[in-house]
Amino acid sequence: MSGFGTTSMAGHKPVHFLWDWRDRIAVIRLNRPERKNPLTFDSYAELRDTFRALAHARDVDVVVIASNGGNFCSGGDVHDIIGPLVGMEMKDLLAFTRMTGDLVKAMIGCGRPVISAVDGVAVGAGAIMAMASDLRLATPEAVCAFLFTRVGLAGCDMGACAMLPRIIGQGRAAELLYTGRSMRAEEGHAWGFWNALHPAAELEDAALALAHRLAAGPVFAHGITKTQLNQEWNMGLEQAIEAEAQAQALCMQTRDFERAYRAFVAKEKPVFEGD
Amino acid sequence: MSGFGTTSMAGHKPVHFLWDWRDRIAVIRLNRPERKNPLTFDSYAELRDTFRALAHARDVDVVVIASNGGNFCSGGDVHDIIGPLVGMEMKDLLAFTRMTGDLVKAMIGCGRPVISAVDGVAVGAGAIMAMASDLRLATPEAVCAFLFTRVGLAGCDMGACAMLPRIIGQGRAAELLYTGRSMRAEEGHAWGFWNALHPAAELEDAALALAHRLAAGPVFAHGITKTQLNQEWNMGLEQAIEAEAQAQALCMQTRDFERAYRAFVAKEKPVFEGD
Amino acid sequence: MSGFGTTSMAGHKPVHFLWDWRDRIAVIRLNRPERKNPLTFDSYAELRDTFRALAHARDVDVVVIASNGGNFCSGGDVHDIIGPLVGMEMKDLLAFTRMTGDLVKAMIGCGRPVISAVDGVAVGAGAIMAMASDLRLATPEAVCAFLFTRVGLAGCDMGACAMLPRIIGQGRAAELLYTGRSMRAEEGHAWGFWNALHPAAELEDAALALAHRLAAGPVFAHGITKTQLNQEWNMGLEQAIEAEAQAQALCMQTRDFERAYRAFVAKEKPVFEGD
Repeated sequence: MSGFGTTSMAGHKPVHFLWDWRDRIAVIRLNRPERKNPLTFDSYAELRDTFRALAHARDVDVVVIASNGGNFCSGGDVHDIIGPLVGMEMKDLLAFTRMTGDLVKAMIGCGRPVISAVDGVAVGAGAIMAMASDLRLATPEAVCAFLFTRVGLAGCDMGACAMLPRIIGQGRAAELLYTGRSMRAEEGHAWGFWNALHPAAELEDAALALAHRLAAGPVFAHGITKTQLNQEWNMGLEQAIEAEAQAQALCMQTRDFERAYRAFVAKEKPVFEGD
Repeated sequence: MSGFGTTSMAGHKPVHFLWDWRDRIAVIRLNRPERKNPLTFDSYAELRDTFRALAHARDVDVVVIASNGGNFCSGGDVHDIIGPLVGMEMKDLLAFTRMTGDLVKAMIGCGRPVISAVDGVAVGAGAIMAMASDLRLATPEAVCAFLFTRVGLAGCDMGACAMLPRIIGQGRAAELLYTGRSMRAEEGHAWGFWNALHPAAELEDAALALAHRLAAGPVFAHGITKTQLNQEWNMGLEQAIEAEAQAQALCMQTRDFERAYRAFVAKEKPVFEGD
Repeated sequence: MSGFGTTSMAGHKPVHFLWDWRDRIAVIRLNRPERKNPLTFDSYAELRDTFRALAHARDVDVVVIASNGGNFCSGGDVHDIIGPLVGMEMKDLLAFTRMTGDLVKAMIGCGRPVISAVDGVAVGAGAIMAMASDLRLATPEAVCAFLFTRVGLAGCDMGACAMLPRIIGQGRAAELLYTGRSMRAEEGHAWGFWNALHPAAELEDAALALAHRLAAGPVFAHGITKTQLNQEWNMGLEQAIEAEAQAQALCMQTRDFERAYRAFVAKEKPVFEGD
């Protein structure tokens, strides 16, 4: 695959979270399990920069955000983040909230599917990272809470008032955002937040199997699917249909489209190569 | 809390519906239980004016719209409203439909959460008032119908074609709006229209408990949550994320945010004061 | 009912699919049951033209797209469509994808409710035709797959990235569009894609009963309901409410509105005539 300034993630060595890269799949994992993996200013910024770099990566097809030590992410660290924010000046507060928003923008703009695999706690910004992923797997023990209201803030954090209603419906989203209450795993599954539930011992294998399945697919086309899912967010219906006519005409010019046709005619399974 | 021209609702004395105000919670209740609480031109206008006044109220944190005599609201009264509309001139018809739409606009613009507690019938404009609330509780006997088609009208009443699909999904909304059929309580719960079902004897206590819980929260932030849920309705995703960065930076300047942090550090429960 | 250039569908004789027209209800049925009813260039174009003509029809109130031989539609024919597309030039590819998008635009613009009755396979463009209908019935054996990714393409086909999330939620839609997996009938029902499931032997009767019920309603108003459901797709909430005030004021000037009122007063069932 060509590209203007594409990069390899082979040398990517983040210091504020774990990073595993093999078979064109990157696995991200926060690494303070004794505290349920809170975010810090540093890990926020490094996650943002990593997802921005992924947008140009030529050797990563799918990203998995995994759990660690039985938990996904407990959100912004109370001591490292909340404390310093209290009393901070407006300009710095805005710089912080923009950085958190930039993480979500980087996730939705990274050009390839992101799968979250959530065991245990996914609260605050941890719930947002799950929400901003394309696909979400969880365990029956997963606890997800948009608990901003419980720390005196509004539910509108990092895009939650826009994204959560589209995933689970406006009424359920309003309840979670106004009350900050936990969404139980079965609720989240029934409501379409979690795509599937798996026992904790099987969660990561399930997420990796899904990642491999997507990586074995037409990844250029997957990137277009992701682009359009976000791009058409607030388009008119007719405009979305025209946008898809253009986008799909692009995909019909890929070799993967031809490969699928040739395989079908030969009664074989297509082997996609992403170009 | 300061404000430009804020008002107290202490002296509010509506004449076309019941009004109960205590502990910073206002309870609205239509009061023609023998007819299942239909709306009239007068009660429509007074509800609109009340919700408009609530936008500037300094002493109401949550609004509850309650049932009365086993029913919520049977919609526009056939004799008082439908009859006069038949044969009315276009300009007057538009003035009427705009007034009904203004009630919804006033509800979504009133700056604090609105909870509907629905027992029995919530049909026509009654279904709309429930739909336009932020949170919706009901009894297993609640019957909700967007029955406009059954009186010869379209499903597009007071915002239903925009709001109902976001709450229960486009396909279910289309069915309810084209057929006018009743949504059973269990359906409405499974579909995310009702946040919870409670036995009739417990409904109002549940609604008030929820109202008190919200009123004990960071109510300035709740107002921002409500603003953003509506404001981001048709924003692009990236624009919504920026809007939330700004909105949340505002909330981080409240004392309630600091109170939550101090309480956490002291291992106490925060006491929010709404500023 | 008057109209500018309205037409009768009495003489409509499509050659690439079956067409049955009686009692103001049109039934469309693809007719290559031995191949599970694939679409061809010709049937695509003729369907598009038929739905465009329906926009001006004065004698069709509801359209039903039915199954045939136990299947609904297997999508674009591999030999008749996919083969020729492989290697086609960009301008022709875009002309094709625009034609497919035009079918959806014609369906949503045809001015009257469209009901899909899906038995067996509804995949690829077949899934899209179901999705683009207003109401969707299926059998427990119905298999629906947005399988574009499996032929090397993106999920953004004919409006799927815009419409599917509004029907079943963003997370479930993403899963179906990225993986191309089949949605089982029970899933589709639980998620709000199918409005109801019926045994295969009863499916078509159920669809026709629903069509007759809608045709017996205020069909001018139904057309406005359809217009507004699509028109308000990406309106602001306040703008949607004003749009509905105008649209409903139109419907209040119909005789059907008066008929409903007169029938109510006379304790009779209203007989709507569509004007």
